[in-house]
Amino acid sequence: MSVETIDDLLLNELKDLYSAEKQITKALPKLARAAASGDLRAAFESHLEETEGQLQRLDQIFEMLGKSPRGKMCHGMQGLLEEGSEILDEAEKGPTRDAALISAAQKVEHYEMAGYGSVREYAKLLGQNEIASLLNETLEEEKAADHKLNGIAKRINSQASRSPKAA
Amino acid sequence: MSVETIDDLLLNELKDLYSAEKQITKALPKLARAAASGDLRAAFESHLEETEGQLQRLDQIFEMLGKSPRGKMCHGMQGLLEEGSEILDEAEKGPTRDAALISAAQKVEHYEMAGYGSVREYAKLLGQNEIASLLNETLEEEKAADHKLNGIAKRINSQASRSPKAA
Repeated sequence: MSVETIDDLLLNELKDLYSAEKQITKALPKLARAAASGDLRAAFESHLEETEGQLQRLDQIFEMLGKSPRGKMCHGMQGLLEEGSEILDEAEKGPTRDAALISAAQKVEHYEMAGYGSVREYAKLLGQNEIASLLNETLEEEKAADHKLNGIAKRINSQASRSPKAA
Repeated sequence: MSVETIDDLLLNELKDLYSAEKQITKALPKLARAAASGDLRAAFESHLEETEGQLQRLDQIFEMLGKSPRGKMCHGMQGLLEEGSEILDEAEKGPTRDAALISAAQKVEHYEMAGYGSVREYAKLLGQNEIASLLNETLEEEKAADHKLNGIAKRINSQASRSPKAA
């Protein structure tokens, strides 16, 4: 697609985020199964539900714009999720792997924070206030998910640093 | 590499960030040339200098750990920079492309914020206070770079939304 205006850019980046969220819904069940900590598994599972809601919001926005959400592959998210998969080969199930999974998940959250921050600004600038408000809801959820992972990380990292294999 | 302890994880993620920073130093001159706005070009150029300083800090840390920085490819950053390259095909030089470049650059900054946030926590937990403090310096620079891009985005996005091609 040719991106000439902020309207085009909004659409282009919304398609990118749609592809990103779709990829995340496929990855989260694998991450949940890979986690040793019950807290972390539950966090991944509840973020899956949240992500499905975020996809519904995007569907609603595409409907409001009269456009299709398809046609773009988010290569950024592809790379980030590849890093998540690498962890499963590098670390066995346990607190260290959990710490690594949290770090990978926080990179995913940060991608989305940056992405939703941009599209919310474009929507505001275009006077698309309802769309901006929907995008803001998702942005706040992503920030909250990142914050929640920080809390779980504090417990898991300290457990990992006390694990028998730790130097 | 096999990641069994938080020490292993610290090393693994430092290598990931080293690969990410190396990729960024190659990408920034291209992004600077692709920008139409003088402010944005200058921001990319000054962030290149900053990134070189961040690589030196990482070199210093690897020396302190007695380890090599090589041996890992950061696939997350590869994907994020691929998105930056796509913009050059999708949008012609001008305010809309600049807005898209800023969004891509903020995703890069957010990756680094998440990455440096994690390694700083691992270093603290391991009592590696000097390393934690070096990583914190870089983390603060990344946050400041993201903040600076927010400011430039406000001017450029509003220029892009007033451009003759805008709907």
